Amino acid sequence: MRVLEPDRILRLEEDCVVVLDQRRLPDEEVELVCRTAAEVADAIRELAVRGAPAIGIAAAYGYALAARRGEDLNEAYAVLAGARPTAANLVWALREVQAAADPVARARELHSDEVERCRRMSSHAAGLIEPESRALTHCNTGGLATGGQGTALGALIEAWAQGLVRHVLVDETRPLLQGARLTAWELESAGVPHAVVADAAAGSLLARGEVDCVLVGADRIAANGDVANKIGTYPLAVLAQRHQVPFYVVAPTSTIDLATATGAEIPIEERDPAEVTSRFPARNPAFDVTPAELVTAIVTELGVHRAPFAASLSGAVAA
Amino acid sequence: MRVLEPDRILRLEEDCVVVLDQRRLPDEEVELVCRTAAEVADAIRELAVRGAPAIGIAAAYGYALAARRGEDLNEAYAVLAGARPTAANLVWALREVQAAADPVARARELHSDEVERCRRMSSHAAGLIEPESRALTHCNTGGLATGGQGTALGALIEAWAQGLVRHVLVDETRPLLQGARLTAWELESAGVPHAVVADAAAGSLLARGEVDCVLVGADRIAANGDVANKIGTYPLAVLAQRHQVPFYVVAPTSTIDLATATGAEIPIEERDPAEVTSRFPARNPAFDVTPAELVTAIVTELGVHRAPFAASLSGAVAA
Repeated sequence: MRVLEPDRILRLEEDCVVVLDQRRLPDEEVELVCRTAAEVADAIRELAVRGAPAIGIAAAYGYALAARRGEDLNEAYAVLAGARPTAANLVWALREVQAAADPVARARELHSDEVERCRRMSSHAAGLIEPESRALTHCNTGGLATGGQGTALGALIEAWAQGLVRHVLVDETRPLLQGARLTAWELESAGVPHAVVADAAAGSLLARGEVDCVLVGADRIAANGDVANKIGTYPLAVLAQRHQVPFYVVAPTSTIDLATATGAEIPIEERDPAEVTSRFPARNPAFDVTPAELVTAIVTELGVHRAPFAASLSGAVAA
Repeated sequence: MRVLEPDRILRLEEDCVVVLDQRRLPDEEVELVCRTAAEVADAIRELAVRGAPAIGIAAAYGYALAARRGEDLNEAYAVLAGARPTAANLVWALREVQAAADPVARARELHSDEVERCRRMSSHAAGLIEPESRALTHCNTGGLATGGQGTALGALIEAWAQGLVRHVLVDETRPLLQGARLTAWELESAGVPHAVVADAAAGSLLARGEVDCVLVGADRIAANGDVANKIGTYPLAVLAQRHQVPFYVVAPTSTIDLATATGAEIPIEERDPAEVTSRFPARNPAFDVTPAELVTAIVTELGVHRAPFAASLSGAVAA
């Protein structure tokens, strides 16, 4: 199974953080060099690096870089924490490096932990997939999004390698086309048969019986199991339930925010309308909230969590 | 109320059919001149003219042009009828001009009939809209799509002029962006407040209570009320029902195909995958089918039809 090398996705060097610039994919594979915490925050804000776990690692590396450079660490923390408002493990990762005696070592550890977490999540989630499945996924939740082998996409690639998945439909994921650009690129790299579809086409493919399972990631999971994820996740969950197709969320425990009781409390980032169109007025909510009732299971590195999620998630995070 | 002039959208001249090239909007307002029936068929196939009623009129004008030029009329019929597989009133309009003693006069009559039908549909549908409504629409169903003032979009502009609609959310409608390019352009021209959203964002805006009604057009309506329309209509209908938002289909009776018992019999055009992406494999179903159970009402030029649709539609078409 060919997966992206973790160091190729993002790494800390002596005087900089280097990320594979996801804005340029799939056309060009270009590295972006960030020389300050503020430059790392820019890379996060402008989506050169994206995906909740990868953002966390990038922020940790940014903080470690600031520590190494002797930058004001409160300022570094603030600028990195403010780069994206929805991702829970951005703040989680920053707290980890902030509390560490050696931020550099802790940041590297967070990255290698993420690689291991992805491996476990992928393995647990692949175990849920029936042989010969045709899967559907949304946005990008692969190596690019995590720094490891991925969450939902990692599971799909793993399941394909095990002969369980035979084809993956990829929502193009407007407005930024993470599916059409990044997920398709990762599936092509891994040799997995796939096809990109317009987001609005997924519903009728579910209705026609062309999808056996839906796997998505998460940016934040509330204590009750409500899932904030890329805009367009919620309609997929509604349609999956209508057509009795299992809907799995694959995300690390760092995404679970027990301090947030329900999805209603999760702030939804409204991004620049120009990402949708600059010719006319536009709205651009970047995330939506899928109520727990629509989720078949949440898979973390610890295993498979099912309803009632309040119990299964709090047990997992406390463990 | 400012609406597009019917002659500006498409017209028959002495030796050609002229259409406003919708592929160039909103950046440029350019007319495309078609000198043969085959060129009109190309304009339909390549979406220079699109929208079920406008396609019917363009085909009728194409046939009339062929008659005037002394082209082989069987061949003209075949090439025009084959230009798009889903639109019912393409074939309907062609049969009308084929059966007419004077195809030119009949084609012009079809166009002026459409203008009048749109006026009636808009008036009937506007009557369903509550004051201060925030509406959502999909694709383009305005003057550009009909040659008149439009179906669903005509109704929204009419309802805005009557003070009933205060804002219109416009699905961008991937892959061809008819919403972001054409509907937004028509709403801007008419002075109606609007915002474009990614198709996948509509579900969460419905969930958040930001939409009071959904209006869409139709490409074909089966005898039982199942509606074939632009891909992405079906998920909107599912989400509207889930959030108890009325879902109205506005379409002329020429769209109703009593010979088609249910939506399952409607052939779904799969268009060029390159419209989605040419970098990776893709699927591109152009339409989906919304089951009648999700439709609050179907509005034609004859009035408002409600369930059971088998009775209300057959009565309308027979009338």
